[in-house]
Amino acid sequence: MNKTPTIRQFLLTLACLASSIAHAGGVPEGMGVLPAAVPAPANNPTTPDRVALGKKLFFEPALSKSGHFSCNSCHNLATWGVDNQKFSIGHKWQRGGRNAPTVLNAAFWSKQFWDGRAPLLEDQAKGPPLNPVEMALDSEANAISRLTEAGYTPLFDKVFGKNSLNYDNIAKAIAAFERTLTTPNAPFDRVVRGDGNISAAARRGMMKVEDIGCTSCHSGPLFTNNEFVKFDYGQDHGLKSVTGKADDEHVFRVQSWRNVAMTAPYFHDGSAKTLEEAVATMARIQLDTQLSHRDITDIVAFLETLTGEAPKIELPVLPRPAGHALPWKD
Amino acid sequence: MNKTPTIRQFLLTLACLASSIAHAGGVPEGMGVLPAAVPAPANNPTTPDRVALGKKLFFEPALSKSGHFSCNSCHNLATWGVDNQKFSIGHKWQRGGRNAPTVLNAAFWSKQFWDGRAPLLEDQAKGPPLNPVEMALDSEANAISRLTEAGYTPLFDKVFGKNSLNYDNIAKAIAAFERTLTTPNAPFDRVVRGDGNISAAARRGMMKVEDIGCTSCHSGPLFTNNEFVKFDYGQDHGLKSVTGKADDEHVFRVQSWRNVAMTAPYFHDGSAKTLEEAVATMARIQLDTQLSHRDITDIVAFLETLTGEAPKIELPVLPRPAGHALPWKD
Repeated sequence: MNKTPTIRQFLLTLACLASSIAHAGGVPEGMGVLPAAVPAPANNPTTPDRVALGKKLFFEPALSKSGHFSCNSCHNLATWGVDNQKFSIGHKWQRGGRNAPTVLNAAFWSKQFWDGRAPLLEDQAKGPPLNPVEMALDSEANAISRLTEAGYTPLFDKVFGKNSLNYDNIAKAIAAFERTLTTPNAPFDRVVRGDGNISAAARRGMMKVEDIGCTSCHSGPLFTNNEFVKFDYGQDHGLKSVTGKADDEHVFRVQSWRNVAMTAPYFHDGSAKTLEEAVATMARIQLDTQLSHRDITDIVAFLETLTGEAPKIELPVLPRPAGHALPWKD
Repeated sequence: MNKTPTIRQFLLTLACLASSIAHAGGVPEGMGVLPAAVPAPANNPTTPDRVALGKKLFFEPALSKSGHFSCNSCHNLATWGVDNQKFSIGHKWQRGGRNAPTVLNAAFWSKQFWDGRAPLLEDQAKGPPLNPVEMALDSEANAISRLTEAGYTPLFDKVFGKNSLNYDNIAKAIAAFERTLTTPNAPFDRVVRGDGNISAAARRGMMKVEDIGCTSCHSGPLFTNNEFVKFDYGQDHGLKSVTGKADDEHVFRVQSWRNVAMTAPYFHDGSAKTLEEAVATMARIQLDTQLSHRDITDIVAFLETLTGEAPKIELPVLPRPAGHALPWKD
């Protein structure tokens, strides 16, 4: 029997859990510990062999035309799953149009990308290698030939069966690895569990985000309701660029606050260089609230308690053909 | 007492060791196991705290103007300390002029860079951050301000003492980390130790490199005599670009064969895409020898036995200022 929970099971468990731990550690109802169980689709259980292969692929520069970029270039696991750039650097020094979100805890989001255009991590992983301003491979076939030449065929055969080096399985393995990238034991989580404390300022901030209504969207243990909400800021069309619907203009997925202190700069356009600025802007635009300097610093102090433990990653050793250069292109 | 051997002590030990293991496992005199002890300068012992700090710095993109490149970008530890590029990609997609050598076992070389312009790893490490076509920082002060802003001050204070975040100590920490990057237990090493075997082709190749004289330069357990030798190939001036002496035209440091099968493409200009091509060219130009196809494949089979175990690296978590973007520049 497959023990990996489906997303539906997972969300139900999460709801029960959230209600059972309400008020633990003096924490507002709904807030709670980062879940330990990570949901996975039924057709891609998070098995150790998929995770190990996915880790190699996550660090694999052969998935970029130039041989320079891997997933880890923009979602750097040494820096909390981001590159701290406003817009990431891509093929031939092009820049993307949206701030790269962290991969940490991304397994918990109901949809991927700022505009939610990918339902699952498996779908998301298929995007960047073929995006001409990112990794810029010509085609799925190009990804497969690159990995074949690098020596991945036996690794895929072992994990997915014979003749299984295909684009779907590349994405599945990467997604399986990404499902291991969670960040437990934030100071806030310790408070909820009753084995730690946070500063008075952070406690004030925790109550303030509840009082003024931030948590109507940034709700639950993930500090996101995983919904899509209008954020009328900047020129980016957001969800409308996917659906074409006028109602979806400037609509974006609600971002989690988990590890937010480590993922500057902020917003879909990376325009807010500090968390103070991001907090003040969100309160003003979304809640029509002018926060005082003290409120802002209190809220930031609280957000800093949501930084968990970064996953421990042993750098993989990637397959390479003995004595042969790989066919990088400019 | 400092137990780290000096380079002089180390070379003496190496000479004794080489003579004592001559002919072990049917191996030609002089060849031997990769040394276990790594030399270090007296003023930079390879202590665990220097290594840990150096590992962070090795992966630190804040040491590049754009915030995109770290040491690991070109000397990728997931791919045998190289990027498999002809010339590495640098700031704003510029390309360097020489093939990036591996950092693996680099602690054993008597001088660093193809032209040997850096006597020690400490000297080498100071180059790329300030090289305008590589990481492109404006100045040493810029490196220091970047690391200060990222939050490195207490880490340096702990390792090197108060007010120690300076360019010399950045280089020292990186060099200390690099001294841990050795690759023991190659199939060849197991043969010498009598606990393994290599193919008949590899054995023929091992005798052939001795017969035709490759090992007059690629000598000893490191398969380099660490000397400078004329290689009249291409337009690169080599050592002459450092000394200005006519005699040093096209003179380069003899490269080690350790892990050579994993570091394609080859030569200072990365022009040889395969090890077969590199072997044939070297024999022709350096030894005036036309090798047969069989000799080439035998020699390549031998060189493949020199691939050791890649070092196990846990990816560091880099210091970052809570809630603040770092000042990357284009």
